[in-house]
Amino acid sequence: MSAVEIVEVGPRDGYQGIGPFIPTERKIALLEQLAAAGLKRIEIGSFVSASALPQMRDTADVLAACARMPGVDPQVLVPSERRGRDAVAAGARHLVFVLSVSEAHNRNNVRRAPDESAGEYERLLAAVPADTRIRLDLATAFDCPFEGRIPEDKALALLERLVAAKPDAEICLCDTTGRADPAHVASLFARARAAFPQAEAWALHAHDTYGLGLANVHAAYREGVTVFDASFAGLGGCPFAPGATGNVATEDLAWMFARMGVATGLDLDALVAVARDGAEIPGGLPGGRVRAALSTGGGVCAPTT
Amino acid sequence: MSAVEIVEVGPRDGYQGIGPFIPTERKIALLEQLAAAGLKRIEIGSFVSASALPQMRDTADVLAACARMPGVDPQVLVPSERRGRDAVAAGARHLVFVLSVSEAHNRNNVRRAPDESAGEYERLLAAVPADTRIRLDLATAFDCPFEGRIPEDKALALLERLVAAKPDAEICLCDTTGRADPAHVASLFARARAAFPQAEAWALHAHDTYGLGLANVHAAYREGVTVFDASFAGLGGCPFAPGATGNVATEDLAWMFARMGVATGLDLDALVAVARDGAEIPGGLPGGRVRAALSTGGGVCAPTT
Repeated sequence: MSAVEIVEVGPRDGYQGIGPFIPTERKIALLEQLAAAGLKRIEIGSFVSASALPQMRDTADVLAACARMPGVDPQVLVPSERRGRDAVAAGARHLVFVLSVSEAHNRNNVRRAPDESAGEYERLLAAVPADTRIRLDLATAFDCPFEGRIPEDKALALLERLVAAKPDAEICLCDTTGRADPAHVASLFARARAAFPQAEAWALHAHDTYGLGLANVHAAYREGVTVFDASFAGLGGCPFAPGATGNVATEDLAWMFARMGVATGLDLDALVAVARDGAEIPGGLPGGRVRAALSTGGGVCAPTT
Repeated sequence: MSAVEIVEVGPRDGYQGIGPFIPTERKIALLEQLAAAGLKRIEIGSFVSASALPQMRDTADVLAACARMPGVDPQVLVPSERRGRDAVAAGARHLVFVLSVSEAHNRNNVRRAPDESAGEYERLLAAVPADTRIRLDLATAFDCPFEGRIPEDKALALLERLVAAKPDAEICLCDTTGRADPAHVASLFARARAAFPQAEAWALHAHDTYGLGLANVHAAYREGVTVFDASFAGLGGCPFAPGATGNVATEDLAWMFARMGVATGLDLDALVAVARDGAEIPGGLPGGRVRAALSTGGGVCAPTT
């Protein structure tokens, strides 16, 4: 079976909703633990408004610290050309540009229509060095908190312009709400890959809010997708939805692929250890199953099925 | 897409590990709620040793109460011919016989080798009325807490004798430990269905201990399986593995299939309501995601992917 790449997004998507500021040195120490568990590509933060997302205000410092971590490929999220320039000036070599398929979500995120964000993406591409690696995050590709289920044609229509702008960008379809189901995931990836054969790399960003994170990852894997975002300890729950967990947990993905015999390059024991630490971050909303399941001594209940 | 049948097993697999006795009237009231949510087939208990599983000691009383619930098809688990006779004498028309593929687990459950249990199954079939409906639960079909991963050939070899004994029994492959993965589930069902075309009905009993419950259900569904066990509120965690949740949650399955457009006949709002009540059972170990996700007011975190 094909090897997969798990992209650790906890330090960006997992942390951004956490109220209490995580000290920069703590962030750096956790990054070192994540790297030691085998994670190479890590979304370490975002260049965004410090008033909108104060947790991300030290991203430049965290990025600088990554230069001392051999093998780590830090990617940073940017919502605009200007923030992209800021990121490059701070030393970023791998940018994530985010826009939403749904107008309501894109306006809520960046106060622009999706098509305006597509123009912003084109300007960003023109503004950064040609060898900057680009990942395109397509938020609300499946479902929107405001508009509900997103028609597949709408996601595909937006991709026309975006893929043309940079066919060698990695395109990540994001299940922002966690309401995608495996059939929807399989269908949209199948259609997108058929419609855009020139696009070189596809990824899935899954949330586990409704428990479908792993099922959706597996559905995408069956469609040939081999890059998956995940967050250690499943961090990323939304503070406005208490009890609802966030990103699919890195250790859960690592477990599933290990059971399937698919190589990830990750050390599960080390991952569970850093996930335990991540779950203790004040204000965090941890999720996932494997951390708890592997942290117990085992035991057998009987008679049982 | 094909309709599926969700079999509610919480009142048996979910309750059996709960220490404090759930009063019989409470069990009956919860059954009425489950039936009102659209569940037809419900595994309401087991005829087993009252000293081994005191929580199940009132199964005959619960079974009698089901006669007053129109449309409910109560099934009861039995581990032996003698218990099967007891169940029939108490009015049971639908029996679940359980045996394990792994010798260590079967001995731990019923102090017999699997082949001895197969003989017991044949005696049970001979002893009960011919129109008794039979479900065969094959525990540790994928993985055993003592022996680890179970070779597919071993499960298939045991099925030779069992299928021959009653081809029209429903055969349920049970992921007892929750350590099956979607590729394993798909492979074993594909091989079993090809090897035993005379077997009429197949089912999956999934646990969510490692978060793979829904992924495994979806993998089986893609292989043509349409009957799935689940437990309301995800009850069924093992008391020897704190933090490890149990059966895949009924409401999570109902949610997934609803999103996929696959009919289940279930009322999700009513299911979430009874799941909330189930999660409050003293001594229970609830799991699942949808109960929490749908119990919040929603809300949007931004900027987010």
